[in-house]
Amino acid sequence: MNDTFLKACRGEDVPYTPVWLMRQAGRYLPEYQAVRAEVDFLTLCKTPELAAKVTLQPVDKLNVDAAILFSDILIPVEAMGMHLSFSDKRGPILSEPIRNKSGVDRLLIPDTEDAMPFVIETIKILRKELEKKVPLIGFAGAPFTLATYMIEGGSSKNFLHTKKMMFQNPGLFHSLMDKITTTVTLYLGTQIKAGAQAVQLFDTWAGVLTPEDYKEFEFPYIKRAVAELKKEGVPIIYFANECAGLLKEIKKTGADVIGVDWRIDLREAIKRLGKKVAVQGNLDPCALFLPKEKIGERVEDILWKGEFAKGHIFNLGHGILPETPVENAITMVEAVHKYSRT
Amino acid sequence: MNDTFLKACRGEDVPYTPVWLMRQAGRYLPEYQAVRAEVDFLTLCKTPELAAKVTLQPVDKLNVDAAILFSDILIPVEAMGMHLSFSDKRGPILSEPIRNKSGVDRLLIPDTEDAMPFVIETIKILRKELEKKVPLIGFAGAPFTLATYMIEGGSSKNFLHTKKMMFQNPGLFHSLMDKITTTVTLYLGTQIKAGAQAVQLFDTWAGVLTPEDYKEFEFPYIKRAVAELKKEGVPIIYFANECAGLLKEIKKTGADVIGVDWRIDLREAIKRLGKKVAVQGNLDPCALFLPKEKIGERVEDILWKGEFAKGHIFNLGHGILPETPVENAITMVEAVHKYSRT
Repeated sequence: MNDTFLKACRGEDVPYTPVWLMRQAGRYLPEYQAVRAEVDFLTLCKTPELAAKVTLQPVDKLNVDAAILFSDILIPVEAMGMHLSFSDKRGPILSEPIRNKSGVDRLLIPDTEDAMPFVIETIKILRKELEKKVPLIGFAGAPFTLATYMIEGGSSKNFLHTKKMMFQNPGLFHSLMDKITTTVTLYLGTQIKAGAQAVQLFDTWAGVLTPEDYKEFEFPYIKRAVAELKKEGVPIIYFANECAGLLKEIKKTGADVIGVDWRIDLREAIKRLGKKVAVQGNLDPCALFLPKEKIGERVEDILWKGEFAKGHIFNLGHGILPETPVENAITMVEAVHKYSRT
Repeated sequence: MNDTFLKACRGEDVPYTPVWLMRQAGRYLPEYQAVRAEVDFLTLCKTPELAAKVTLQPVDKLNVDAAILFSDILIPVEAMGMHLSFSDKRGPILSEPIRNKSGVDRLLIPDTEDAMPFVIETIKILRKELEKKVPLIGFAGAPFTLATYMIEGGSSKNFLHTKKMMFQNPGLFHSLMDKITTTVTLYLGTQIKAGAQAVQLFDTWAGVLTPEDYKEFEFPYIKRAVAELKKEGVPIIYFANECAGLLKEIKKTGADVIGVDWRIDLREAIKRLGKKVAVQGNLDPCALFLPKEKIGERVEDILWKGEFAKGHIFNLGHGILPETPVENAITMVEAVHKYSRT
């Protein structure tokens, strides 16, 4: 198996810089669109053969160094007892958003194996299919990010309901975060036992917090989840979007790899993160709309900066956009492999 | 006149920290809602008596140390020849978005005095009304932020059309930025001549750029506008939202005051900005939903951090939210005045 990715996560020597793309299994791929034309998004997530199929699609096509489980961060939220649906216009919708104590009390801490057997099954299929290829990354939404969806009932602009609960009833907010963290930790534990060889915590919305609020309302939960999961012995990646103001805290989470979004210079980020963690990132997803030769230049620049970290996994600074030309994603992966060898 | 605000902009000694709020004339005020019930948003912007009226509403009610002209950043874009409208759901809409050379060529560089006489008139009314009260701030959108609206045709999530033009046709993008910068500079010059005692450049979307792209595609235009406007002798404030990763560049714009959003610790921001500029900010707008005593604590913390800068103007880290309880905004202003005196 190509273990470049796992080695880079641990900061070990690698012959070249490994690369994968957040949302690499997704709408920019015609093969993915073909599958989605037949089934809705949630059915796809919950049908192991299909979820495994779309997980594998980018692996050969893009020649990436890791696969990531196809699923959605809100799947365990559904297992906690909320009703989840997806609207083409509004994105995810969680009906009866959590706004008070009875809402928090009603939430279950699910038996993650029993509640999400399809995830275990998908991972088992994938490990077999990927045996001589690349490692499989499992993932979950970070507690604060999941809390925002649960409290807002979906996406949000200002996260006012979330912050209102945080500010006006911090005890209640903490009890919600506690339940989510327990669930997420169990869920990632289940993924690892099923065969995930690394796991990533996606903190899409951490960046809407002041550093002070991040420290009080999210950091302790990330630290706890990471400490618990480290016992399983696989690399833990923590990606917080819009992280530029939070790196001083993020450094202390204990994660093996810190994902960095594109809004900060990678060299700057590494300076603030120090020598004890590997980094992952951080090409602007829109840079895949550059002319091909320019993509190479940007890749080279980021590779050069990544050299200063304990380890570097190349990635985008956020998910690949649905409009991205596939050949440009391929160009990017080729450039990472080519330039990092020299 | 209370000149605390102007003194703080220049880094001079002040008896207390001055404060104003971005969007302080706006939907959270019942008096503003009453005016808006009678006229639509664009008519309000273009009717001097009414625009002056809503500008003045928060001055006494909140006891802030500066007034800011009520207008919209897209007003000069309309003067450049684009058709502007506002939708309650989608926000601003610019029909026929700029996507190619003929679009850029079609844009006028307006005679800003002739094209926007209502702005001059509003400022003249306001200076009379504010004579023994507080200074008047004029404003404009920063070139990149205006470019995003002009290219996207309105608000955007990923700014893909903007970045596509930047990346695929940088020459065209630069020629658009050149035209916008000329217009914005003329427009702010007109405001200053009419009586604005300071001006702020609002760069709402600068934070979606990588530091490298900011340096190439926005920084030179900010620097040029600032250099030109400095000749007028009034303080120039530059507010870039989501600035945490960009401060190294922002430091060099030449602006007298740098506005800082809430996603970075103000002490950290000041460290990176150095001793030559004053700062403005940076309370999370959602912190106005805290219990009143907690608002005081946050204000105190930010005031303490602001002490490290050449000058500090207290403000929110972005515009006040429409849902904000007015009494909490008043509490905030009182707390700034009270704690900064001691």
